[in-house]
Amino acid sequence: MLAEIITIGDEILIGQIVDTNSAWMAKQLNSIGVSVKQITSVSDDENHILEALVDAEKRADIILITGGLGPTKDDITKKTLAKYFNMGFRRDEGALEMVRQIFEKYKRPLIDINMQQADVPDGCEVIVNKNGTAPCMWFERNEKIFVSMPGVPYEMMYLMDDEILPRVASRFKLPSIIHKTILTANIGESFLAKEIEEIEDSLPKHIKLAYLPKLGQVRLRLSATGDNENILKAEVEVFAQQIIEKVKKFVVIDEDIPLEQAIINMMKKRSLTLSTAESCTGGYIAHLITQHPGCSSVYWGGAVAYAYELKESILGVKENTLAKFGAVSEETVTEMAEGAIKHFKTDYAIAVSGIAGPDGGTEDKPVGTVWIAISSKNKTIAKVFNFSNKRIQNIERSAASALMMLLNLLREDS
Amino acid sequence: MLAEIITIGDEILIGQIVDTNSAWMAKQLNSIGVSVKQITSVSDDENHILEALVDAEKRADIILITGGLGPTKDDITKKTLAKYFNMGFRRDEGALEMVRQIFEKYKRPLIDINMQQADVPDGCEVIVNKNGTAPCMWFERNEKIFVSMPGVPYEMMYLMDDEILPRVASRFKLPSIIHKTILTANIGESFLAKEIEEIEDSLPKHIKLAYLPKLGQVRLRLSATGDNENILKAEVEVFAQQIIEKVKKFVVIDEDIPLEQAIINMMKKRSLTLSTAESCTGGYIAHLITQHPGCSSVYWGGAVAYAYELKESILGVKENTLAKFGAVSEETVTEMAEGAIKHFKTDYAIAVSGIAGPDGGTEDKPVGTVWIAISSKNKTIAKVFNFSNKRIQNIERSAASALMMLLNLLREDS
Repeated sequence: MLAEIITIGDEILIGQIVDTNSAWMAKQLNSIGVSVKQITSVSDDENHILEALVDAEKRADIILITGGLGPTKDDITKKTLAKYFNMGFRRDEGALEMVRQIFEKYKRPLIDINMQQADVPDGCEVIVNKNGTAPCMWFERNEKIFVSMPGVPYEMMYLMDDEILPRVASRFKLPSIIHKTILTANIGESFLAKEIEEIEDSLPKHIKLAYLPKLGQVRLRLSATGDNENILKAEVEVFAQQIIEKVKKFVVIDEDIPLEQAIINMMKKRSLTLSTAESCTGGYIAHLITQHPGCSSVYWGGAVAYAYELKESILGVKENTLAKFGAVSEETVTEMAEGAIKHFKTDYAIAVSGIAGPDGGTEDKPVGTVWIAISSKNKTIAKVFNFSNKRIQNIERSAASALMMLLNLLREDS
Repeated sequence: MLAEIITIGDEILIGQIVDTNSAWMAKQLNSIGVSVKQITSVSDDENHILEALVDAEKRADIILITGGLGPTKDDITKKTLAKYFNMGFRRDEGALEMVRQIFEKYKRPLIDINMQQADVPDGCEVIVNKNGTAPCMWFERNEKIFVSMPGVPYEMMYLMDDEILPRVASRFKLPSIIHKTILTANIGESFLAKEIEEIEDSLPKHIKLAYLPKLGQVRLRLSATGDNENILKAEVEVFAQQIIEKVKKFVVIDEDIPLEQAIINMMKKRSLTLSTAESCTGGYIAHLITQHPGCSSVYWGGAVAYAYELKESILGVKENTLAKFGAVSEETVTEMAEGAIKHFKTDYAIAVSGIAGPDGGTEDKPVGTVWIAISSKNKTIAKVFNFSNKRIQNIERSAASALMMLLNLLREDS
């Protein structure tokens, strides 16, 4: 079964927001055996939406549409869907009741344009949205399904989890789609490909291998589609094990999880604790780690020491060190990491200090100069990196490099 | 001039990665006067890519393609483009030299599949990629331009900034596209619409108004396209001022910047300093703030106090408070905020402690219970929120709520 995702909204096409909905939806659809054929983002323009619907109907069996359901005049998805299906409008009682409840809950007066949120094309089935005033609408025509949902992420997510996915899964006999990911580090994509060339060439047609390089890591993904989930899993596992055996020393983990999660899992198994001392990454490493449930048994916390004063007061960096070597130096970052171990009483610590930019660089230390130190109770390893002049990238690359250094030290220590 | 962005890669369609490239590209294209008509994500499948190219060529004048240029077998963009344009291959000397330099820099042996990165369809122009081994390729046919770039964000960004955008801007007479955004808070989308209804109805046809609600904030965006940038700006400004006048008390700022940046700017003007004390948001608020250049004169840093021990040692939360009321309580979050003011010596502090989930909830304090406190030197305001059972959303909504509370206190104090 093929799906197409259509996201509607000028805000996507002018780059005002990043479309995070589609990836989440695609992942959920895959998990019940629906493949996403295409993701299409179109503007709040009637003709353009109609065109996208026509095209999607040709390509896919189920078309999931998000966005354009707000109460304001720029939102035209509902009107356009009515036109596409040649339907009139009716006011849906269930949807209206939900609008009423939401306004009652927030103690706001109900005005006419809010009640209009309950008007829907008369041939659609309404799925009540418990988290917002825009109802979800389910259309069927010529064996094709169209579902229109609000673009607000958490409203869409609840509707998908609680309503759309269970309906689709129970109604159709769906195949199994299996993905198996092997996270590797410290080896380039092309060398990895060369190492596992024979295994790749021996893959049967229904198993595909993909390479996803990112910030010093390469994810290898084996994907298979078929009828029997257990057989597929077993088949894929055979090839996964061959690959792991072949490039063992580069394998971080054979799950599709981010590096920081792999590290947390590894540390949890070994009952180790971690803290952070961040300057230029400004809490980003802490955020990466704390996104993941269950991190608290390993990660104790840390400091975001942006100002000199905080480097001294929270981490115990010496005033003299900062004055003599500067905040971006081997000496300072070493004291930050060792200070974290000492003050936060953890087994390992990450410290980062650099010039994220775009300003603040000098001839000696241009923008993109980043010192990273990793400490255990016995030793500290510090390393300097020269990244780019782009702030966000410098933050991301610093974080990825710090995590890689921690991984390597953990492996050395094991 | 219309552009279409085509992103190629199964990883997008199975939801393994979020496509952040397209939003960035769209924003840059807009800034030079190119409108993005559609963003299309397709799989690593020859027929599908060919189909997408045919469709895009009908809709747009310039087609920007990212992804599928790696050295491994799953990357088929180059081959597919050669087929689309009916071209053979040649080895490009400039591209080969760059591959050589990159391998020399990292002291890695050059193998055959790396050299093949320099093979390009023989009718395209090569634009050397200084940050990676996949060259950028520029094709022209029937007045349409096709540009193929690697999907690695920083490689794509350099190519766009340094090569593609300047070329397009110098070659075509492009219109001006003006966006003006007004960030509002504390008012719902529908009420806002009602307040400014008359202004919206009086907008000329070439100026569009859009509403973008997100986490308690609504962005109003006026967009205009035309030949004379100064006239457009002046026109849009007239309507923007009318709107600001009408809903003054809800306006945070009349720039398209995130809430935290508006707060930082406001605090910078008033020479105020800020620190953070985060538990369940785990550094996310610090990260939001430190993404932005120039934040360091306002933001001094803070603590990510995940463990009880760190709440006590860094922030001075009393052991007794934690024992009696728990980490997620008005008492603890108040001590966290006041501790931040005291220990980090800033004018304002944000503290957050909650149960992000998915586990850790109790009957009294279910998952999604979050206490937030904002302190100035004179007072502390604490508030409890009940969010959802989704961890990432709880983190994001906690951060947005904390920033809103800080904004409101700053306004009160001004």
